[in-house]
Amino acid sequence: MTTSSVRVGVIGAGRIGKIHAGNIATRIPSATLVAVADVNATASEELGAKWNAKALADYQAILDDKTIQAVAICSSTDTHAKIVQEAAAAGKHIFCEKPIDHTLEKIDAALAAVNKAGVKLQIGFNRRFDSNFRKVRELVANGKIGKPHILRITSRDPAPPPIEYIKVSGGIFLDMTIHDFDMARYLMGSEVTQVFVAGGVMIDPKIGEAGDLDTAITTLWFANGAIGTIDNSRQAVYGYDQRVEVLGSEGMAAVSNNLPDTHVHSTRDGVYSSKPLYFFLERYTESFVNEMSEFIESVGNNTATAVTGADGRAPVVIGMAALKSFKENRPVKISEIA
Amino acid sequence: MTTSSVRVGVIGAGRIGKIHAGNIATRIPSATLVAVADVNATASEELGAKWNAKALADYQAILDDKTIQAVAICSSTDTHAKIVQEAAAAGKHIFCEKPIDHTLEKIDAALAAVNKAGVKLQIGFNRRFDSNFRKVRELVANGKIGKPHILRITSRDPAPPPIEYIKVSGGIFLDMTIHDFDMARYLMGSEVTQVFVAGGVMIDPKIGEAGDLDTAITTLWFANGAIGTIDNSRQAVYGYDQRVEVLGSEGMAAVSNNLPDTHVHSTRDGVYSSKPLYFFLERYTESFVNEMSEFIESVGNNTATAVTGADGRAPVVIGMAALKSFKENRPVKISEIA
Amino acid sequence: MTTSSVRVGVIGAGRIGKIHAGNIATRIPSATLVAVADVNATASEELGAKWNAKALADYQAILDDKTIQAVAICSSTDTHAKIVQEAAAAGKHIFCEKPIDHTLEKIDAALAAVNKAGVKLQIGFNRRFDSNFRKVRELVANGKIGKPHILRITSRDPAPPPIEYIKVSGGIFLDMTIHDFDMARYLMGSEVTQVFVAGGVMIDPKIGEAGDLDTAITTLWFANGAIGTIDNSRQAVYGYDQRVEVLGSEGMAAVSNNLPDTHVHSTRDGVYSSKPLYFFLERYTESFVNEMSEFIESVGNNTATAVTGADGRAPVVIGMAALKSFKENRPVKISEIA
Amino acid sequence: MTTSSVRVGVIGAGRIGKIHAGNIATRIPSATLVAVADVNATASEELGAKWNAKALADYQAILDDKTIQAVAICSSTDTHAKIVQEAAAAGKHIFCEKPIDHTLEKIDAALAAVNKAGVKLQIGFNRRFDSNFRKVRELVANGKIGKPHILRITSRDPAPPPIEYIKVSGGIFLDMTIHDFDMARYLMGSEVTQVFVAGGVMIDPKIGEAGDLDTAITTLWFANGAIGTIDNSRQAVYGYDQRVEVLGSEGMAAVSNNLPDTHVHSTRDGVYSSKPLYFFLERYTESFVNEMSEFIESVGNNTATAVTGADGRAPVVIGMAALKSFKENRPVKISEIA
Repeated sequence: MTTSSVRVGVIGAGRIGKIHAGNIATRIPSATLVAVADVNATASEELGAKWNAKALADYQAILDDKTIQAVAICSSTDTHAKIVQEAAAAGKHIFCEKPIDHTLEKIDAALAAVNKAGVKLQIGFNRRFDSNFRKVRELVANGKIGKPHILRITSRDPAPPPIEYIKVSGGIFLDMTIHDFDMARYLMGSEVTQVFVAGGVMIDPKIGEAGDLDTAITTLWFANGAIGTIDNSRQAVYGYDQRVEVLGSEGMAAVSNNLPDTHVHSTRDGVYSSKPLYFFLERYTESFVNEMSEFIESVGNNTATAVTGADGRAPVVIGMAALKSFKENRPVKISEIA
Repeated sequence: MTTSSVRVGVIGAGRIGKIHAGNIATRIPSATLVAVADVNATASEELGAKWNAKALADYQAILDDKTIQAVAICSSTDTHAKIVQEAAAAGKHIFCEKPIDHTLEKIDAALAAVNKAGVKLQIGFNRRFDSNFRKVRELVANGKIGKPHILRITSRDPAPPPIEYIKVSGGIFLDMTIHDFDMARYLMGSEVTQVFVAGGVMIDPKIGEAGDLDTAITTLWFANGAIGTIDNSRQAVYGYDQRVEVLGSEGMAAVSNNLPDTHVHSTRDGVYSSKPLYFFLERYTESFVNEMSEFIESVGNNTATAVTGADGRAPVVIGMAALKSFKENRPVKISEIA
Repeated sequence: MTTSSVRVGVIGAGRIGKIHAGNIATRIPSATLVAVADVNATASEELGAKWNAKALADYQAILDDKTIQAVAICSSTDTHAKIVQEAAAAGKHIFCEKPIDHTLEKIDAALAAVNKAGVKLQIGFNRRFDSNFRKVRELVANGKIGKPHILRITSRDPAPPPIEYIKVSGGIFLDMTIHDFDMARYLMGSEVTQVFVAGGVMIDPKIGEAGDLDTAITTLWFANGAIGTIDNSRQAVYGYDQRVEVLGSEGMAAVSNNLPDTHVHSTRDGVYSSKPLYFFLERYTESFVNEMSEFIESVGNNTATAVTGADGRAPVVIGMAALKSFKENRPVKISEIA
Repeated sequence: MTTSSVRVGVIGAGRIGKIHAGNIATRIPSATLVAVADVNATASEELGAKWNAKALADYQAILDDKTIQAVAICSSTDTHAKIVQEAAAAGKHIFCEKPIDHTLEKIDAALAAVNKAGVKLQIGFNRRFDSNFRKVRELVANGKIGKPHILRITSRDPAPPPIEYIKVSGGIFLDMTIHDFDMARYLMGSEVTQVFVAGGVMIDPKIGEAGDLDTAITTLWFANGAIGTIDNSRQAVYGYDQRVEVLGSEGMAAVSNNLPDTHVHSTRDGVYSSKPLYFFLERYTESFVNEMSEFIESVGNNTATAVTGADGRAPVVIGMAALKSFKENRPVKISEIA
């Protein structure tokens, strides 16, 4: 590595921490993985050993390391806001997984700390870095579909998460649809102004008992006059279903799912092809690399990050409005929340 | 033709009357086109001459003709209910174009007359007879996708109709979305219980001045617990966009658009293929044949028709609820209407 | 019908005769089906009754009918050349099913008679009138793929015909590949100059015992310098497989199969879609209408036909060269045949 | 890395050496990149520095390093056979890029040395490790298409290589089609017994002046009775075109191209989508990782390699037969060559 490589510490050695650590270590030539930290010392040591990085039980040591310029916060959601503030105070540039927090107070405190410290912050909305969605954004932004009229997002998981996860997830809107709210803002280049939700518990009654939904259709209104619809399910048995389309006055841009292969098997009984890639680890492999790569570039070149603190806050607000809409069975203006 | 052929009179020699007359004359071996009637005598004469049928200015002569067993009512919407009643009184079996009427009073009077006379009635929701949608219905009805959770319909015209038409159309929900409401009931095999509409005027301000919308997203709730979304636009510049999908507990059934050809043109600049078939005349050519053919079979075999009077009434009620929802910006229960 | 309608007699009331008779009677407004003739009087009578046309046992009566301007020759192949000559002598314009004959002597005699009589002749290579192939031809002819380099045709039947048919078919090259030879000439706009065949009996040994092949790959050389490959099979269990593509210096034009519907069924086990349309009756329904419609137009407007006698002769010659190539296991120049 | 990691030296730091070195260093956890060697010391040093490996000008130092178990031979083709022999003598397991050599004498000497030393050898036919082709092989091998009848391979480069490369490439059959010959053997699980070639110079006359072809259709006969066709072009302007299909007695398995994204842009003028991935670096990124990963596993687990020396020799023989066929314009049996 050259001396100008950005030196990074990863905080959190769970599933997403492992992804980012591996990508920093192997896929991003201009970054160096210096250290990983996790309260679970075993997890930390295994990950550090794998990529030849320091293994720490306490992330404070990362913040104290003057040679480290940037941190990737991959710990549990309830610790994000606190660590963002501490990292900002330590002068580190910050990549923080979504959501920043489940409360606006903590989010705002974190963003204020970042702002005060003048460090960079990028939120982990990785789907913006996927080649499919990026192509749609490009077509919309370049006027290739004219003025946007209708946005349609289909976002379905292959199977619900464990009930224990559901209970601490913040609910479907802050855990799952939050990605779609971000995608909506990204694709349309316009703010969401109002939401309406129809939803239910169709897959597993335990999800209902945990106070959550597993199926929802969300209607969106945008500041530019367009409208949109998101349909979410926690269970598409055929795999991770991630499609978007934007209809405009001059055309439509749409993307379909990525498949593991292009095979077609034609038989007496019909024509068979492959299911979509199973879930986000398979589907968004490259977008995780891309988002970190762009973060590193922002740090290295001192340019703005692609997903700002405000971009991290907005989908949380929309998610809160969505939940309120569902509970009150009425359209809810975003301005009612914050 | 054999003597058992069903003898039919067509009332109305406009665009849709021409289609049905031609299909009866040439595509349905078990039917005979006996006469056509239109207040516009020229239209009637041209059509009669083309298919070697009697040309009448007054449809009463068709009702009086004892050799005619069935009529196809293709006149303007405001005359449907009256002619249905007269035809029923004359003992004719009735194929009636959609919608039966724009008011429930007239619809109910018409259905009562049909019921009293004991004649058959089929409403012209032709899309049910399309091979794509029929295949989806079949998969849903046979449990091939498990229990239905989410319905998604995209229904977009290539270009808005003339403003003069808009003014007498009954509005987008009774003129355009009515087909989608029927499709929703057909595909799900369950009644719609509530609707919510987000919509606007995005294509042509004149449509707004005429008191109508040109773009709408309608959320549906079904008696079986499922939910659905319909997105409508009066202008998809790439052609008539007619797609549906149903997600269920065990899979998804979906259909895409029909194209005029399967060509793919690969160049330095990208890969090009054909746009969807332009509009309903091109797209639903065969479904018009199929619906009339099944109507004739129902008459010939004395079996129930595939689209009943109740099927003709329900989408009108949903359309009224949709308009109310848009005006009041709230979900509206179908039971609020009728 | 107007007085300017072209009056047609159909000779032969078998499978293909029925198609043409029905199309002339119902789908082509500018033609009138006057009479049908078949040595099988029952077949003739049934077909005549169906479309309200005269039913004859002897086609001579059609040739003698001065009100008939055109004939469609749909009798058995061995009668084509003779009837063409008689019809030409009677001054009838002629639509003749493919092939004209299995021998060049008879073909040349028939074409000479047509030429002498100055009547129009169109050969039944219906695939040229299919919207898919027509689009490819249009792209090639308009230079949209630059200079053609490689032609690829896949042409596979769903199941072999009965052995009794095989025995009188003239062999795979004159019965089945002949369509592909015509397609090759049509798409490339250039003559075939040489062929080479690799083939075998893979599906049914009885086909081999009858002296025929059931599987073949034919290499083609064209006068314009391009090369091509045709792969044929008598048995694609998934349905009628009819694809072509042309690669050129500036791109590629390709078409895939037509399907009965666009449905996609996504399940835990994979994604299923429909097989291609079963066979030529389903696949080429519209091309049969189009070819007859254009023939009628040629007669009505006194313009050249779209598939000339020379177009009918050339694929027979190529087929003979193909058989010679297979027998001698070497490339055979077309000039070796005729 | 664990102590059981396979230690590898890469010989040759050109385009393909860089790919394998990077993959060994970052994508294959059970391998360690120890050293890279190249006669071009600068290339060697840059590559070594990038992946923290020893940089050598002379590959002899790799062969002398007792800690290195395996080598990847990525040097110029004319050095392959010699280095294979030296590496075998040094007891190294060998991954060797294709082709082993352009002469059978040298190939046989290399394979004899490998055999004598008892080391493992894998040849770099990377396409066998692509998920698309692997799926087709799996379907064929598992009898999912019945008995194979017809193989069809389309293999086209986006643009011809420089003329200087053409001159030393061994010709289109040993440089380009060799991959397709390997694919044919792999997919069919049967040896090629005979070939016939039709070809020409259509893209660039300079290729002809260099004694090579740029466009070819090769017919193949297999020991199992099946036949096949390969169409090659050095210039498909729309990108790297890599498709295969196998028709069998019970169905067909086929794959199409991989695209950079799934976007569809629908406009007034048509529907646009993305071109195939540009060339082999983009298209076969993962297959390069997979082939090396499986080689490392073979070494680590002492199992047979997936592409043997015999697999490396056979396509060269077929290529020689193909060239002979083209020159002599006749089918050539493989047994005529060796």
